[in-house]
Amino acid sequence: MDTAIKEIPGGVTAPAGFRASGIHAGLRKNKSRRDLALIVADCRCAAAGVFTTNKVYAAPVGVTREHIADGYAQAIICNSGNANACTVDGFEKANLTCKALSEHLGIKEEDIIVASTGVIGLPLPVEIIISAIPELAEQLAYGEMASYAAANAIMTTDTRPKEFACEFTLGGKKVKIGAICKGSGMIEPNMATMLGFITTDAGIEPAPLREALRSVVADTFNMVSVDGDTSTNDMVIILASGMANNAAITAPEGEDYETFRAALLQICTNMAKAIAADGEGATKLLECTVRNYYDKEGAKKLAKSVIKSPLVKTAMFGADANWGRIICALGYAGVEFDPYKVDLKFKSKAGEIDVCKNGCAIEVDEEKAKEILSCDYIYIDVDCKCGKASATAWGCDLSYEYVRINGDYRS
Amino acid sequence: MDTAIKEIPGGVTAPAGFRASGIHAGLRKNKSRRDLALIVADCRCAAAGVFTTNKVYAAPVGVTREHIADGYAQAIICNSGNANACTVDGFEKANLTCKALSEHLGIKEEDIIVASTGVIGLPLPVEIIISAIPELAEQLAYGEMASYAAANAIMTTDTRPKEFACEFTLGGKKVKIGAICKGSGMIEPNMATMLGFITTDAGIEPAPLREALRSVVADTFNMVSVDGDTSTNDMVIILASGMANNAAITAPEGEDYETFRAALLQICTNMAKAIAADGEGATKLLECTVRNYYDKEGAKKLAKSVIKSPLVKTAMFGADANWGRIICALGYAGVEFDPYKVDLKFKSKAGEIDVCKNGCAIEVDEEKAKEILSCDYIYIDVDCKCGKASATAWGCDLSYEYVRINGDYRS
Repeated sequence: MDTAIKEIPGGVTAPAGFRASGIHAGLRKNKSRRDLALIVADCRCAAAGVFTTNKVYAAPVGVTREHIADGYAQAIICNSGNANACTVDGFEKANLTCKALSEHLGIKEEDIIVASTGVIGLPLPVEIIISAIPELAEQLAYGEMASYAAANAIMTTDTRPKEFACEFTLGGKKVKIGAICKGSGMIEPNMATMLGFITTDAGIEPAPLREALRSVVADTFNMVSVDGDTSTNDMVIILASGMANNAAITAPEGEDYETFRAALLQICTNMAKAIAADGEGATKLLECTVRNYYDKEGAKKLAKSVIKSPLVKTAMFGADANWGRIICALGYAGVEFDPYKVDLKFKSKAGEIDVCKNGCAIEVDEEKAKEILSCDYIYIDVDCKCGKASATAWGCDLSYEYVRINGDYRS
Repeated sequence: MDTAIKEIPGGVTAPAGFRASGIHAGLRKNKSRRDLALIVADCRCAAAGVFTTNKVYAAPVGVTREHIADGYAQAIICNSGNANACTVDGFEKANLTCKALSEHLGIKEEDIIVASTGVIGLPLPVEIIISAIPELAEQLAYGEMASYAAANAIMTTDTRPKEFACEFTLGGKKVKIGAICKGSGMIEPNMATMLGFITTDAGIEPAPLREALRSVVADTFNMVSVDGDTSTNDMVIILASGMANNAAITAPEGEDYETFRAALLQICTNMAKAIAADGEGATKLLECTVRNYYDKEGAKKLAKSVIKSPLVKTAMFGADANWGRIICALGYAGVEFDPYKVDLKFKSKAGEIDVCKNGCAIEVDEEKAKEILSCDYIYIDVDCKCGKASATAWGCDLSYEYVRINGDYRS
């Protein structure tokens, strides 16, 4: 049996049965920037979503939660440039968007997923969206250019569109998963704190689809931190068209389910890393793996504490092997551990270097450390030497550019 | 009865019975920077301390915890330039420092408080400290110049020394409290995350002194955040000489205790604000008050969540009235609240402006908002309209300078 998961191009339009589009509707002043995206399946799909845990959630999050509750959906519409959060008429406008798209495409309102990203507290100019729907639908297409347009349209301060797809075999059938996502600011590991739209042509029922998404998000999106802020708007949605004609997965167990979950994990890991690497102002992707800890939950807390520390992030920006800040961040993670057992190591494509043994300083070749930390992908390896569980978290360095971007985001 | 608390000069040497000194011992390369401080009481004092909650705590924190456990101490020695944390011989060296000072001053080792601040993981050159003790003791003096020297010697990336003192009446006697502190980096509200040394000539027994310090720290130092990092080294210590000859306070209750606690609260509030205002790279002091919430603990969590948000901090740096980030930070504070009841207001010496009513956008004069947010002391007022409890937290904006300082701290 072929269990390989092969990366392929095509984003959300890679799986069979999905069209996409992305246009400039006019929510942004800059006419060269797309601001409205649409993904439409050829048939009604099994669907699942994970949403922000913020008590203040945007109107589209509320509307989408209701629409996806039955486990089915067929289209995703998403605007950038305005979060449709904290305004009196947000729910009404999110519903108006669904209604207009429903009428135009002949899809039930309840099968439409609506999402927004951008500034909080500005009234959504919904008339711009509604009047752009005909053109948005007109542009719908299969193929990678369409996914690329949609991936562009959901960007905010992202510096590049983020698309992933893979191909694998499920019960003898070729199956694909595709995805687009955006991240950049307000990325925090308490939830799926960004926008991620995933498509697949796998046949899988809503219940196992939901469980696969939930469990994969916990190890990927929830292990990313850019700045510790959990957004009001974020969601990860998956639609499964079943058009690969595999024998449908009906429960969250068994070989097919595990194969599907492994492929979804790979796609979501790639998205998580891409979001971290493109964090606002980021110059480096940081990956912290905590190994040999008592349990996985604790290992996750330790890894996230390191990734979130502003002092670690600025040290990495400066390529400064100031490992004391790492052990310090482990110390306030809120879980038990013995500092006098911890070994720390930095790795990158330039090599690796031990910087701390049993919680204490060892002699470090600072030149070598500088060289390793000057690469754009840094691994921080933490060996707790007290158990067998491990966890990985992703983040980015903290640069001047983060301050510049966020000091004047609205202007 | 005169209940006024009057601010006075003099720092830790303001209260009767305290001498101080601060010299350049040689821990820092820059000879114009002091790096060793000493505070000595004329008699054995009632003493209390609050320490970092970090699981990784520096050797001097461990030694001091033991020395203060009996509720008495007489001298405080503190070096900057080296944290004496995460090194194999840290405890031994902290004990050697106490031993040398004990022999030189004729004070019991167990009555000596030892503290360090600086880089983690570098072996402490304890021989430099030991050989500097004679000069450090020689320089001991009463009077404000001595406090100023000590306040200078404990600085790391602080831009200015921090000293406070006040005078009030306790049972007909004039009583004083004095303090020096340092903050700047690794300031997080989980504990007394900085160094604060407080002296008083009040007569107060160890038990009520400990309770007063504990309760005041919870509302002051623990409500400050610069960057969310809890240091390995931080402590707040108070020594009470009893030389004001008031009738000693023997329990954490009664009029005298409340008067003493109020004065200590004022001193610690001033220190907390000074630490926030001098946060690494800070250009503005931020004060967030959450009002009319169900309970105080929840109000504290909400206020701290706002103060800690990197997106709020950068918006304040940019004088951008992006209040959506404030309501977003309230939303992930981890406590229940109704976003659709929240009113938000910005205040400064340039005026005040409402920016959000009942969780929703209102029309805002952006020019006026910019003017208000361009001042160096910004009040963020959050009215939850659901209860009667309130809490205040302090922080600072996040600037380019924070990144510069921390990108290359060790060089």
